[in-house]
Amino acid sequence: MSRIVLKFGGTSVADPNRIENAADKVQAEVKRGNQVIVVVSAMAGVTNQLVDYCQQIDPGCDAKEYDAVVASGEQVTSGLMALALQKRGLNSRSFSGWQVPMICNDQHGRARIDDIPAENLENCLKKNCVAVVAGFQGITKSGRITTLGRGGSDTTAVALAAAVQADRCDIYTDVDGVYTTDPRMVPLARKLNKVSYEEMLEMAALGAKVLHPRSVELAMAWNVPLQVLSSFNPQIGSDSPGTMIVSEEDIMEKQIVNGVTFTRNEAKITLLSVPDMPGIAASIFAPLGAAGINVDVIVQNVSPDGKTTDMTFTVPKGDAARTKEVLESLEPLKGTQIRVSNDIAKISIVGIGMSSHTGVAQTMFTTLAENKINILAITTSEIKVSVLIDEKFTELAVRELHKAFDLDQKNVG
Amino acid sequence: MSRIVLKFGGTSVADPNRIENAADKVQAEVKRGNQVIVVVSAMAGVTNQLVDYCQQIDPGCDAKEYDAVVASGEQVTSGLMALALQKRGLNSRSFSGWQVPMICNDQHGRARIDDIPAENLENCLKKNCVAVVAGFQGITKSGRITTLGRGGSDTTAVALAAAVQADRCDIYTDVDGVYTTDPRMVPLARKLNKVSYEEMLEMAALGAKVLHPRSVELAMAWNVPLQVLSSFNPQIGSDSPGTMIVSEEDIMEKQIVNGVTFTRNEAKITLLSVPDMPGIAASIFAPLGAAGINVDVIVQNVSPDGKTTDMTFTVPKGDAARTKEVLESLEPLKGTQIRVSNDIAKISIVGIGMSSHTGVAQTMFTTLAENKINILAITTSEIKVSVLIDEKFTELAVRELHKAFDLDQKNVG
Repeated sequence: MSRIVLKFGGTSVADPNRIENAADKVQAEVKRGNQVIVVVSAMAGVTNQLVDYCQQIDPGCDAKEYDAVVASGEQVTSGLMALALQKRGLNSRSFSGWQVPMICNDQHGRARIDDIPAENLENCLKKNCVAVVAGFQGITKSGRITTLGRGGSDTTAVALAAAVQADRCDIYTDVDGVYTTDPRMVPLARKLNKVSYEEMLEMAALGAKVLHPRSVELAMAWNVPLQVLSSFNPQIGSDSPGTMIVSEEDIMEKQIVNGVTFTRNEAKITLLSVPDMPGIAASIFAPLGAAGINVDVIVQNVSPDGKTTDMTFTVPKGDAARTKEVLESLEPLKGTQIRVSNDIAKISIVGIGMSSHTGVAQTMFTTLAENKINILAITTSEIKVSVLIDEKFTELAVRELHKAFDLDQKNVG
Repeated sequence: MSRIVLKFGGTSVADPNRIENAADKVQAEVKRGNQVIVVVSAMAGVTNQLVDYCQQIDPGCDAKEYDAVVASGEQVTSGLMALALQKRGLNSRSFSGWQVPMICNDQHGRARIDDIPAENLENCLKKNCVAVVAGFQGITKSGRITTLGRGGSDTTAVALAAAVQADRCDIYTDVDGVYTTDPRMVPLARKLNKVSYEEMLEMAALGAKVLHPRSVELAMAWNVPLQVLSSFNPQIGSDSPGTMIVSEEDIMEKQIVNGVTFTRNEAKITLLSVPDMPGIAASIFAPLGAAGINVDVIVQNVSPDGKTTDMTFTVPKGDAARTKEVLESLEPLKGTQIRVSNDIAKISIVGIGMSSHTGVAQTMFTTLAENKINILAITTSEIKVSVLIDEKFTELAVRELHKAFDLDQKNVG
């Protein structure tokens, strides 16, 4: 007997019919003799509606009340899922975050989980009862409802899996696994059978959109085996595996490159003729950090005359205007020309085998050069190489890199 | 300084704009120097949507999960109301039923309130904080969410008013008070300034639809002064009083008849040639009771031959078909003809002065006779006389009785 946590996202529980479909998958897992905990998101669209209500009343509204309002969405789905399971003859009950309890800190709207006393869930499992837990939410020590922020239901599922020492945490979503790249852009993209937490983390952070990075971090920290699979696949559960996300040691054949990811959501800020003096970087980036702006790639060139320097960095596109405002207000940048470009994409190759292989970056740069794509900046990590390019070359770059690193499906056509 | 509970129904909080409008009325009450607790219903339409989801999955669904789903509606409104009050510079926070806590028994879907420890609310009021409580819901001793059944938010408001010894409980609704009869039917209907609990109870139970009878019973038991007033009236609070519902002793001039009420929601069941033997009534009404069918007016005539009898009673129209089924399955009624008529209305006159006056029923019967309206059955209580008539005479009967008992507005036109 295994213990499995199954998580269904918003599109997988978008209406009563889809909830029933998801309940079939839960039932199949129970029939295999497993103990099951289900975690559900709000029905697709519900959270946005609730957020909209709050913002209609007060755009800068109190996060405590925002949480009380928004957490209701998952509460609804948890009850409906329990009903659908009972209809299938299973013993089941719903748990809101406060009923588990998922004890969180009081950072309302983006709370972190402090503790999950497992007693209530264990009692439920002992009675062969499928526990259906409302994702995305918890309770503070003072008894207020809190939410974990967007992507929070994945985090709920992984945290519960860790708390009850589950053998696996299955994340049902609207894609059937993690792909080498976005299959909508590259039809030859392959579904990966296994990736490491580290790779998934890079791929999630870089826009693969399958799993929230926070849930992957948590799974890595607690060594929870994650599986991503589609709730719309008519085959059920282990008959039709998705992508397993496991620790590096559990992957025998480490791929040099496992994926090509991209994000168009970058703006490039270029500062021309910045005074080249000690502390200048801090005087620029500290105020941006204080303004909550997340600076990503930073490139600095030393100037030939040694008196000024040119500096380039990226920020999320939505923060570009605010970034410019902050920069214009900075005393050391009087006289510095500030250029903002929104037409930037970041393309990355990711793979845990990369660290032990040479020439990977070289292959990337050569491939781009052969396709006449200019590289605007480069950053690297142990398992990743990222470049900034002109946004209009995004598709070309992704497709060619996917081919160059031998990721294209072999037996197609 | 008074302590006031304000309750807003579903149409009064139907969208963020209306919630803001309701918040204005709360603010006015706070500005008068009062301590305020607000009770809110779900936004109009939300509860029906949630009930529909449950029934799509399982029409006979588990009441525990139904409660968890349906209670979310009031949770949303309570958070939004707290936001609207904060926006007005007031200190405010929301309370779900479990946060108050409203401790209920475990009759899910129609729970009764066992206890309301007032400590949390008192702490809130002490800090000049407006407590916004989600109506209609509570928590069982075992920590499950429960609901009080339809009309439950009125009950929540009255119970809270009793628990914190409030000076008044204002029920904001979409009408501006209790009328002598339905003003949509009789334009000359008058708003009553005061009615007694007992009268209101009869009027609520008989279809005045302003207040749920259960909340009136509770107000009577705990002697909570209730006020019904419109949330759509631009004037606010005590400047524009609605109808006060108070104990009989607080009403100096007791009206003989204070209202004419009607309900078209009755079906008449007639049983012809029922064997006239001891226990026959029990053998008919016990199975109906067991089937959850609420039998109202019962009339039985002794037969001339002493062997059979004719029996007439009413049930809610929606239960008519099921009533017939139950009756047809009863052994003692083999050979009895069962007639169902849906075209029945019940018309009642209500007034606490009635018990000390003679000739009230006589006036009613004469008025109906003068208008050629046939009376199908009669029931009476201390403060009420009800008759069943053919439904098509409903308007005529109500209008003529309203006139006969001198309830028409005087200074119109």
